[in-house]
Amino acid sequence: MGLTRRRLLASAGAGGLAAAAGGGFVVGRETAPDDGPDAAAQTVPFHGEHQAGIATAAQDRLHFAAFDVEDGLRAADLRDLLREWSRAAERMTVGQTVGGDDGGQLAPPADTGEALGLTPARLTVTFGLGPSLFDDRFGLAASRPEPLRDLPALPGDELDPARSGGDLCVQACADDPQVAFHAVRNLARIGRGAVTVRWSQLGFGRTSSTSKAQTTPRNLMGFKDGTRNLKAEDPSDLARHVWVAGDRPGEPAWLRGGTYLVARRIRMLIEVWDRASLGDQEQTIGRHKASGAPLGAREEFDTPNFARLPVDSHVRLAAPASNEGTALLRRGYSFTDGLDDRLGQLDAGLFFLSFQRDPDAFVRIQRRLGSADKLNEYIKHVGSGVFAIPPGARRGGWVGETLLALSR
Amino acid sequence: MGLTRRRLLASAGAGGLAAAAGGGFVVGRETAPDDGPDAAAQTVPFHGEHQAGIATAAQDRLHFAAFDVEDGLRAADLRDLLREWSRAAERMTVGQTVGGDDGGQLAPPADTGEALGLTPARLTVTFGLGPSLFDDRFGLAASRPEPLRDLPALPGDELDPARSGGDLCVQACADDPQVAFHAVRNLARIGRGAVTVRWSQLGFGRTSSTSKAQTTPRNLMGFKDGTRNLKAEDPSDLARHVWVAGDRPGEPAWLRGGTYLVARRIRMLIEVWDRASLGDQEQTIGRHKASGAPLGAREEFDTPNFARLPVDSHVRLAAPASNEGTALLRRGYSFTDGLDDRLGQLDAGLFFLSFQRDPDAFVRIQRRLGSADKLNEYIKHVGSGVFAIPPGARRGGWVGETLLALSR
Repeated sequence: MGLTRRRLLASAGAGGLAAAAGGGFVVGRETAPDDGPDAAAQTVPFHGEHQAGIATAAQDRLHFAAFDVEDGLRAADLRDLLREWSRAAERMTVGQTVGGDDGGQLAPPADTGEALGLTPARLTVTFGLGPSLFDDRFGLAASRPEPLRDLPALPGDELDPARSGGDLCVQACADDPQVAFHAVRNLARIGRGAVTVRWSQLGFGRTSSTSKAQTTPRNLMGFKDGTRNLKAEDPSDLARHVWVAGDRPGEPAWLRGGTYLVARRIRMLIEVWDRASLGDQEQTIGRHKASGAPLGAREEFDTPNFARLPVDSHVRLAAPASNEGTALLRRGYSFTDGLDDRLGQLDAGLFFLSFQRDPDAFVRIQRRLGSADKLNEYIKHVGSGVFAIPPGARRGGWVGETLLALSR
Repeated sequence: MGLTRRRLLASAGAGGLAAAAGGGFVVGRETAPDDGPDAAAQTVPFHGEHQAGIATAAQDRLHFAAFDVEDGLRAADLRDLLREWSRAAERMTVGQTVGGDDGGQLAPPADTGEALGLTPARLTVTFGLGPSLFDDRFGLAASRPEPLRDLPALPGDELDPARSGGDLCVQACADDPQVAFHAVRNLARIGRGAVTVRWSQLGFGRTSSTSKAQTTPRNLMGFKDGTRNLKAEDPSDLARHVWVAGDRPGEPAWLRGGTYLVARRIRMLIEVWDRASLGDQEQTIGRHKASGAPLGAREEFDTPNFARLPVDSHVRLAAPASNEGTALLRRGYSFTDGLDDRLGQLDAGLFFLSFQRDPDAFVRIQRRLGSADKLNEYIKHVGSGVFAIPPGARRGGWVGETLLALSR
């Protein structure tokens, strides 16, 4: 293990004279680890069968970015980028600087520095590949998984192309927003000349639990969200609904251990919602607001009696029981981006993120919701993206290797 | 003390039957407190000689909003609004719902609910009055403190009117962004019909320490910021530089115990900065990047030898020694608002907030910085506001009472 950001600072303090003498900005020096159990608890391993940031207990903050590859690049450039991104992500997730060449006083610092002194904050960096990456630019058309295509038009869509799509995506989650910001910023910086940011999204509060150890958070409608979400403690559920196993039609070998990410920017019409009566709000969701219990039940985790919920309530329509057993691993975040210039209303809502074995699972549920959900009076979908999420990297490997290792 | 949000949930869980039976959304019921020392540590008192959120140890997150008063309102309406805002702020800072009438299932919930179950998270709500409030609408022209006027044009300003000014402002700070968001949202909701949001700003990471108990954070340039800031532990400094005492010309009695807030949205030209060499960055700031020590010194808190710092370095130009002893209490936050549509570059930087006894203190320093600071190559000021910050409310009182209590 290398020198963490916290230890770097301690050593920089002691070695201030060297810095003053022009020794430059010490980064990434290798040394023995001794940050103790606290640092370990703050670290989510980057390597593994699956990428981190999916079944990982949801962190508090999000910085998401979609990138487009610049004109003229070849598959080998794309491979180099993904390899370099993986290396940087691996370092940042253990609290190190992004590393790379450090040229002393005369060169820009390899790391932008704003996370120095911060813990890893359970940072995860998850990489995804958009459908457009599989066009004719990189020779990948034959490798495109059949389910990976732009989502079809869905009922109620009011999508902004500037908030949709992308050749690549990066999802950085951490318990400290400055750590998540630092990760995306430095990856964008590493990618300069190869990729440009197409759109990005900050999330300030998680709206799903992905572990039974977590309490259920509330979304900006004030309701508990994700009570019946898939949970990391149920690996058989994840195997069934999330991970690509490679044993179904349309599941290429390179995606085995991976999944698909659907991202939707869902604007809440906050002012309208806030004027709705408590009764309307609870009938719309299908749960009691204070307790989170299904209508007619007592406790949050009581199983809903679907037959007794309003037919157009969100909980009833979205439930697996209403969708031939289809389930998604939701991992969304609340967002607010200030005021809508045009309307002078709060531009806030839910940045919905779900991981599933087939993006069509999302499409089927959303078709049902979009046509019948009472919630539609209060929300609109304004951004959309779908990405194949490659499997995790082995030690010494990189995310995307299973697809791109042999690219010319 | 009333029922906190955490206790509300516990009781709502137990009383789920009552809720299911149509008992409505229980809020603000009075009961004995027993949330223990942890809850106390998470609570910053709302009442006092000064408003909270100024000398309070800076919290991690910010939600700031500037409001304009709607046409046709009278001074009495303004008074009612400020009274109601104070009452709501008082409740939220101890972790209660905003309260007000609760009409059961048939009425909108009094509180929007997204902070239910969260701690107070050291929430502070600080109210301010802009120069425009003292025009002829409310009969306040004669009460306008002479120093309260729009800031003059300053060197390098590229201000966007849509991000500047405002009749009123609310600064909500908390260690949990959802708590800060909830506060501003519910105040805006209470103010509906009386005020509209003119602009708002989220801050995701504090960039100043205001207490000696806090470590110095880093701004998005990767440098420690606010090392030599005024600190709450030095009340004589605050008395000299921050609090209006009423004993100088232009200091009206109603503002005694208050101060002035200057807010500046400072965009950082991140991409340019990231390409600058470490040497350039350090010469620009006047400090070493890793340690935060002044150039030529060893430790962060070593006193700079100003004569040896570059004449155009930020630390040298901004120091009290270069400004006839002028000092500000800085309390800014980092922000990022995604991409700049026009340029495709990161729209991020520092939302600068400073409290001072006279806004002219800021003007004088900024004139010096704006004309000579090497940092100007990397930043631009794009938003601006100045507000008189009334003294704190006494128990049973409200912020603004000293100015408005007698308004017709």
